[in-house]
Amino acid sequence: MAFPVPLDGADALLIVADSERNCDLFWATQFRAPDPFIYIATQETACVVVKDLELDRAREQVCDADVVASSEYEKRLGENPAAGAVLAELLRDRGLRRLLVPEEFPVGIADRLRAGGFELSVAQGPLFPARAVKSAAEIEAIAGAQVAAEAGMQTAADALRGATIDGDQLMLDGVQLTAEEVRRRIHHTLLEHGCHAHHTIVAGGEQGVDPHQSGHGPLAAHQLIVIDIFPQHTTSGYYGDITRTFVRGTISPDMQRLYDTVAEAQAVALGTIRAGVDGHAVHAGVANHFAEAGYDTGDRDGRMQGFFHGTGHGVGLEIHEAPSLSKRTCMLQTDHVVTVEPGLYYAGLGGARIEDLVVVEESGYRNLTTFPKDLGL
Amino acid sequence: MAFPVPLDGADALLIVADSERNCDLFWATQFRAPDPFIYIATQETACVVVKDLELDRAREQVCDADVVASSEYEKRLGENPAAGAVLAELLRDRGLRRLLVPEEFPVGIADRLRAGGFELSVAQGPLFPARAVKSAAEIEAIAGAQVAAEAGMQTAADALRGATIDGDQLMLDGVQLTAEEVRRRIHHTLLEHGCHAHHTIVAGGEQGVDPHQSGHGPLAAHQLIVIDIFPQHTTSGYYGDITRTFVRGTISPDMQRLYDTVAEAQAVALGTIRAGVDGHAVHAGVANHFAEAGYDTGDRDGRMQGFFHGTGHGVGLEIHEAPSLSKRTCMLQTDHVVTVEPGLYYAGLGGARIEDLVVVEESGYRNLTTFPKDLGL
Repeated sequence: MAFPVPLDGADALLIVADSERNCDLFWATQFRAPDPFIYIATQETACVVVKDLELDRAREQVCDADVVASSEYEKRLGENPAAGAVLAELLRDRGLRRLLVPEEFPVGIADRLRAGGFELSVAQGPLFPARAVKSAAEIEAIAGAQVAAEAGMQTAADALRGATIDGDQLMLDGVQLTAEEVRRRIHHTLLEHGCHAHHTIVAGGEQGVDPHQSGHGPLAAHQLIVIDIFPQHTTSGYYGDITRTFVRGTISPDMQRLYDTVAEAQAVALGTIRAGVDGHAVHAGVANHFAEAGYDTGDRDGRMQGFFHGTGHGVGLEIHEAPSLSKRTCMLQTDHVVTVEPGLYYAGLGGARIEDLVVVEESGYRNLTTFPKDLGL
Repeated sequence: MAFPVPLDGADALLIVADSERNCDLFWATQFRAPDPFIYIATQETACVVVKDLELDRAREQVCDADVVASSEYEKRLGENPAAGAVLAELLRDRGLRRLLVPEEFPVGIADRLRAGGFELSVAQGPLFPARAVKSAAEIEAIAGAQVAAEAGMQTAADALRGATIDGDQLMLDGVQLTAEEVRRRIHHTLLEHGCHAHHTIVAGGEQGVDPHQSGHGPLAAHQLIVIDIFPQHTTSGYYGDITRTFVRGTISPDMQRLYDTVAEAQAVALGTIRAGVDGHAVHAGVANHFAEAGYDTGDRDGRMQGFFHGTGHGVGLEIHEAPSLSKRTCMLQTDHVVTVEPGLYYAGLGGARIEDLVVVEESGYRNLTTFPKDLGL
């Protein structure tokens, strides 16, 4: 799956990381481990080097690489070998001197290797560019996580719809409905779908003006409520991602216009997505649409307002990965999976964001998202 | 909280990381961000440098450091500054040339800084040794997560106890009880306690012989079942950790003796824990107890069997952190929080592990764990 690795003239690619956090490593090996292990890939072959404790699991799970016990080298080096000694011994053993390492490779290990006579060069750009283009199995895994995300959104909408309006308050089961309670219900639903999520956003009113605010406390009636759910499927490791914006209660004309403009911008963006299009062009189309509709972006009273995040990002083993629909140039390819999520945020009015997850196709896109886009509940 | 930072002669400590994954950074700033940001600490002062999108949240959350907008420096550098240009500009601006960086600092950034004339030295040992010694508030947060972990264990025990025995099978609600179903129930309980968990272990029979195996498929009657729950509290970020071993059905004499020996070893370990004791001595006591009881450790038929993991590890913002009760020397201090989790694993018999979480005190320890230790259900 990881081959051929672009080695840029090096003898081998070297990664030392845990594959829980390093998605390149998980993608290349299909082995999920919470502790760092060594991965070495040449043009012809690859291996992972793991501790005895991980040997059984590694032999079961690792794809496209040999499994080597680090104890094999530890024995040669005697009791308590120095940090990095096993790695250096292994590289010498295999005649690998010039190593390509990722940008985020630990400088401590790099310094020891260089001091030991190894030459390290840092990979420019993504380590495995092929990771952005999803296989059919990967798209299926992402679609599965998106089904969970939509079920979570349904749970949230049900809670808001089920709430009664008492002045400016939303009441459910006799108590004020809070962001925490909606999030709790969403997370139970995600669990039922084999997924977990962190930082699910349930942000009402002024909280919704900050796109990274998770939201807390009572949710108000007659206010914009942004709900952004990005679950990871526990077994596959792949993410889904969806955002909807709701109002429970009276929708002011300003809120409706804000929302409609965001919905139009999303339609504009979706209309331009296909393989061969620059993600930057998609993003520029959204920014133009907002500007033309009279929605300015910039610093107002010391905080950013308007449209000040990207239009979308790739989704896979990471919630944010290549490609991007943003200020940067980034050519879309068939089977890229990207979010399309324009938003507008103004103090005093609130935030509105609508996000779908789509697969880029040769002549358009396939939307993995079916949840309706209705502001009112 | 992070001061004084041990700078080892450098002008400043520099971290570039996201504080979701880098717990040192979260501990030093109390600011949780999914994207990398810059942290710089001198002897007198500290600052974090964040993107506009994070400014509001950073100003609200950051402790013990000034908040600087990276856009302030981006403006000076013109459109699309080169990677690392903002960081270099900022360091020059503040007259910081010799920088201490953590072992896991990204080599890509390190190489660019060194090429720009900065001197980088890599921290030896932990960046903030004070992080291992918990404050009263931290111990309270860990105890809170442990309450959730025990509630999860109760849920698991209830499911096993509620199951009926049909030959070698465990049946619940008319279907075979699986590891996945027990895990699902545990995770719902954890959610109710404001926690989440990954890789909760529910490993029966042969699966329990691999201490890192999460467990899958039907759980058998008359077999050892290892359940290891280590939830993270979603708001505080602190972990709890508990393991119990159960048999639903008939307990063979070999299973009982294995379990009793593990329980004795845990009592031996707990009896030696207090400030000033070497964690290695605690671990050696457990290893000796097993050896004296006739339980050998080593490679048998190509897999490790016996007692082949550490006796315990620190718990805090990370599930595995300093100090350790293992082969390495590591002096215990008052208000260290450590697990005590001896275990024995043999193919054909199964695994048994018992784990409590304790606070090290001057003359002993305080156990944060109250869950009973009964093998039978």
